[in-house]
Formats: sequence, structure tokens, C-alpha cells
Amino acid sequence: MRYFRATVEYDGTDFAGFQWQHEQRTVQGVLETAIAKRTDQTIRLTGAGRTDSGVHAYGQVISFGVETRIPVDSMSLAMNTVLPADICVRNVTEVDASFSARFSASSRLYYYLILNQPSQSPLYRRYSAFQPLPLDVEAMQTAANYLLGERDFASFTNMLDVGQTTMREVTRCRVNQRRNFVIVRIEANAFLRGMVRTVVGTLIQVGAEKRMPESIREVLEARDRQSAGPSAPPQGLCLMRVRYGVRKQYSHNDGVNRT
Amino acid sequence: MRYFRATVEYDGTDFAGFQWQHEQRTVQGVLETAIAKRTDQTIRLTGAGRTDSGVHAYGQVISFGVETRIPVDSMSLAMNTVLPADICVRNVTEVDASFSARFSASSRLYYYLILNQPSQSPLYRRYSAFQPLPLDVEAMQTAANYLLGERDFASFTNMLDVGQTTMREVTRCRVNQRRNFVIVRIEANAFLRGMVRTVVGTLIQVGAEKRMPESIREVLEARDRQSAGPSAPPQGLCLMRVRYGVRKQYSHNDGVNRT
Repeated sequence: MRYFRATVEYDGTDFAGFQWQHEQRTVQGVLETAIAKRTDQTIRLTGAGRTDSGVHAYGQVISFGVETRIPVDSMSLAMNTVLPADICVRNVTEVDASFSARFSASSRLYYYLILNQPSQSPLYRRYSAFQPLPLDVEAMQTAANYLLGERDFASFTNMLDVGQTTMREVTRCRVNQRRNFVIVRIEANAFLRGMVRTVVGTLIQVGAEKRMPESIREVLEARDRQSAGPSAPPQGLCLMRVRYGVRKQYSHNDGVNRT
Repeated sequence: MRYFRATVEYDGTDFAGFQWQHEQRTVQGVLETAIAKRTDQTIRLTGAGRTDSGVHAYGQVISFGVETRIPVDSMSLAMNTVLPADICVRNVTEVDASFSARFSASSRLYYYLILNQPSQSPLYRRYSAFQPLPLDVEAMQTAANYLLGERDFASFTNMLDVGQTTMREVTRCRVNQRRNFVIVRIEANAFLRGMVRTVVGTLIQVGAEKRMPESIREVLEARDRQSAGPSAPPQGLCLMRVRYGVRKQYSHNDGVNRT
């Protein structure tokens, strides 16, 4: 058996999320079908982030083991020629059997794009969330700073497995304006289900002056999903990068204006 | 009769171009249907640029005359509520009967986005042309400079009406690199049919070292479509802005690195 790691980019619009589901077009399902076509084997692959339906990825990472004679340098081409246009793989490398795209990851970085102007945009509607209320970016950044560090994010998830820890370490949460867009960049060792979209939905409430930046402290303490804001829509979210083997890279300034 | 001018943004992917065509989904047709829904009148509108099938617009301009009591400030909302998601109108103003979006325009500015990396991108495929060969941006800029000024662009069009002049004045043609993209910005008083895409297709040949920058001079002199490069695909092209009432704004440096 040989083991592979690959970076995956996809337009999430027409996928029912990352995770395999019966009779649904999922990222995992489409990738596993492509691997089966090339190797005649039905395998189960692992992804670094189980993105929701409609969420995009520029730098998702997957890992899988398969019997094949395809040279590692030909793997992306072999897969891309059987993959549909809204998904592709890049940078395929051969890895140790112990490598897991999910469990070996030290951090995930997501971008969330908010279109902040009076009217919706036909050209950006697939890749941004539309927010006509003017947003106070400084207030959003003040609120975002409360999320930094190792904290209990129970208030920011709507799906909890029994016994699962809700502690996560957010190492970056930057809010920047660029023309008519507000971009939220958030990086953590890992995220709870729905966490990024709930964080962004809550930050949007702060930006629209529907809640105070300081209220984030109370939301964290409440450990109750009802205390946080609504979930921001999926099409604004994109999994940008997954890091491996690097732990605790705090970033308070890194990424500012780096649009 | 009242007369209106409006800015129009559209995702050209699912349109058979701007110009009205029988039983085709065109930008003009969809807009005229929206106006008919709101005013019960079948009118014919005028557009500043007759973009091809698949070409996008951020700042197309239209003009039309119609009998209506809708206040001018409510016109965009009135139209946008009946327009599909891939098109919208902005900045509707009331104008003089003599105003024509097409004939009053003093210049049109187009952007062409080339994705210049080894593999296609699912996230950018709808809004860029994929070019895996590494492009020499400096050579492309040298070639682009030959296009500046009032020149005969007969070699850059494949559709000529009898007696139509092929003289056009290009006031800007900038080629810039930004990460994995090469962006061509071209502005002229007006463009011949297919001109921008033929210019870009020819510049790509220069960038890929398939022709010398200086060959552009010969292409212009030839007045023969065969001497120019192929037409670049439509999805990379976007009509960004139309100017009115300003003549001859040469720009050699303006726009550099202004991405």
C-alpha cells in the first residue's frame, strides 16, 4: 500500500459539503470516485476540514492509501483528467502511513468574504456573503480579539458529540476592509462544527452595531449557542490553508492588509 | 417620455451575449423584459458595449426611454426585484433625450484576467482564461505599447460592416502580474467587434514567446485578421467602465500595480 497527501481546491456551490453522504454529490465522494477510476480500488480518504455544503476550499488537504503503480508526479494529472471542472488536486506527495490529513494537521486557516455594499453583486454572489448594512470594521476587530487564545467555543457550535471537548485555540482572527469587501481571516488548531460561520455571524452583528464588541466575552462564558449570533451563509467561506508540523503560531498583526 | 441611464453588472456565463437575439437569453433581452414587467411597455434599450457570449460586465451602461411614474431613485430596486441573480442595475439617473449609452460614450475600459499557473482553478475558472505556459509580462507590455494611439485595427476584428472605419484610439493598454494572474487593462474610444479578445490572444502569444513584441507593428500594418493571434476565450473578459464626456485621456502609467 502507498500513502498520498494532496491539496484540493473546489468551488463548493454544487457540492453537498465535504463528507461522504449516500446519493449526494460530496467532495469526498467525487474524489473517491476519481481514485477508484484510476486504481480500481474503493478507498476511504481523510480530509483536514469537513467543510459544509456550499463552502469553498482553496487549500483543503486530503490523505489516502491505495495500491497503484502511478508515479507520484503523475497523480494530480491522473486524477484531474477524471475530476469535474469544479474540483482539482494539486501538490500530490507520497507520505508515511502514519500521516493523517485530519489528525496530523496543526492548524486550519479560513477566509470569509463579506460583500458590504447597498446592492448584491452578480459577479461576486457565488463567493461572498451579501451584507448591505455598513459594517464598523474596527468594532469587529475589537470583538475578534476576544476570541484569540485557547478558549471554550461551546457557544459557537450547534453540533456536539458526547464527551467532545469544545476547547479550541484561535491563533489569528483579523478583520480587514478592502474596497466594498470585509474579509475575516481566522486560524485555529481546529474548529468545531459550524464554528467559523457562527463567529462571522456574531462579528457581523458587532459590525452592524447590533451588539457590543465586549459581548463576545459573555458569549464565550455562556457556553450556549443561543448567546451567539446567527450562522453566516456558506458561500462566503473558504478553507485557505492547512498547516502540518507547526504548533502555536500566534499572529496578531500578520495578515493585516495582506489582501 | 422619460429617459434613463443605468450601470449594469452581469455574470456573462449564462448569457448569449449582450445583444437581443430571438429565443436566446441575452442581457438586452432580460433587461427589456424587466422594464416591460415594471412599465407594461416593450422598449428597445441601447448598451455602451455589445459584449459577446460569456463576457462579463461590472460597469456596462444602458440607456432607454419609457413612460413611467416610478421615481428615479426607485428604478434600480424596481428592476432588481424582477431581474435574475446573475444581473443587476445600479446608479439609475434620468437623462436628456439626446443621451445614448452607445453614441455618447467617450471611452470603454475592459479588463482581461489570465490565470497563469500549471493547473486550472475551480474557483477562478468562470472569471479567467487558463494559460499554463509561463508568460513574459514585460514582453507583453512592450507589445501592448505598439497599440497605443489612433490606429487602424482591421487586423484585430473578424466582422466588418461595409464602409465601417477600422480606426480606433487606444488610450491605455497595461499588462500586470498579480500572484498567479496576468491582467490586461485596455481602454479605447471604442472597440471593433472581437478586438479586445484578439488583442489579448496576440499578447498571450508574445508572452509565451511564440511571437516577438515588435511583430505587433506588422500585424497593424497587415490589416488582415490572419496576421494576428487567436481570439482569447470570453470568460476572462469584463467590461469595467464606460466614460462619458471626457475625451482623450491617455494613460501610460495610470493603472500600473493598481490591482
